[in-house]
Amino acid sequence: MASQEIETLSAALARLPGLGPRSARRAVLWLVKRRETALGQLLEALTAVRDTLVECHLCGNVDTRDPCGICADQRRDARLLCVVEDVADLGALDRAKLFSGRYHVLGGRLSALEGIRPEDLSIGKLIERVGQRGIDEVVLAMNATLEGQTTAHYLAERLEAYPVRITQ
Amino acid sequence: MASQEIETLSAALARLPGLGPRSARRAVLWLVKRRETALGQLLEALTAVRDTLVECHLCGNVDTRDPCGICADQRRDARLLCVVEDVADLGALDRAKLFSGRYHVLGGRLSALEGIRPEDLSIGKLIERVGQRGIDEVVLAMNATLEGQTTAHYLAERLEAYPVRITQ
Repeated sequence: MASQEIETLSAALARLPGLGPRSARRAVLWLVKRRETALGQLLEALTAVRDTLVECHLCGNVDTRDPCGICADQRRDARLLCVVEDVADLGALDRAKLFSGRYHVLGGRLSALEGIRPEDLSIGKLIERVGQRGIDEVVLAMNATLEGQTTAHYLAERLEAYPVRITQ
Repeated sequence: MASQEIETLSAALARLPGLGPRSARRAVLWLVKRRETALGQLLEALTAVRDTLVECHLCGNVDTRDPCGICADQRRDARLLCVVEDVADLGALDRAKLFSGRYHVLGGRLSALEGIRPEDLSIGKLIERVGQRGIDEVVLAMNATLEGQTTAHYLAERLEAYPVRITQ
């Protein structure tokens, strides 16, 4: 057994959130058996992501450019900021065209169960954006889960010190 | 949000055993944020596996050549076959140098809980190998778990019809 390549790939996969060391090893052997199909597709998809996508340093959105298309769009209302849990939420909201301002992606929600603390989310950057003024209203668009609502409550308290209107 | 690349990679990752669609999407966004580090390392490790490893068509071992080094080794006792759950078990056993025969990798063990049935494992190929004669003894080296022992029991029954000695 050529274990060096297996170990290296197992370790790389085990670093992904949601995949433990045991599952990672199983995934490697599963991939070796599917060298021409699944492994090739995964390589192609990873390469496409690496070559085309970046994280917007302003809002945390994922786009083909930085700043992202939304942050760069001068027709957007810069006084209005909508805070979302993740990039998928941003996408869903933006496709609905109900919001004309800009976004801030937290990268998740607080979760005692999963050990996700405020410092694991993009909260410091949010406070910084709000602190730079120019923003009148912050819309907290967390999901309607217990964890989403806990996160919204926490953010509302952190933002209380700033002269902005908080809506949910 | 450039969703095409995200969707394609999410789908490719969600096909891995042990990673659901939700985790896969989280993993993609996690990777986008680590384009220079984790994403690059994963690409490199996957490429190394694709370029160097193959599954042995005889025993299911993973090696740099097919047939694998063990199956190709004429000094090994071809009358002795050791059945293991996966490639990692084969590696561990072989490093211990306690066994001078050849191996057969099942690719897992029967599990009602995980929905792993006989047809999901390399059992047909095992029966075929034993049916071609030339093998005197089959060692069932399943793990000492309930599922491993259930698998060993199942295999012992399936092999009863053949003129081989079964040991555990």
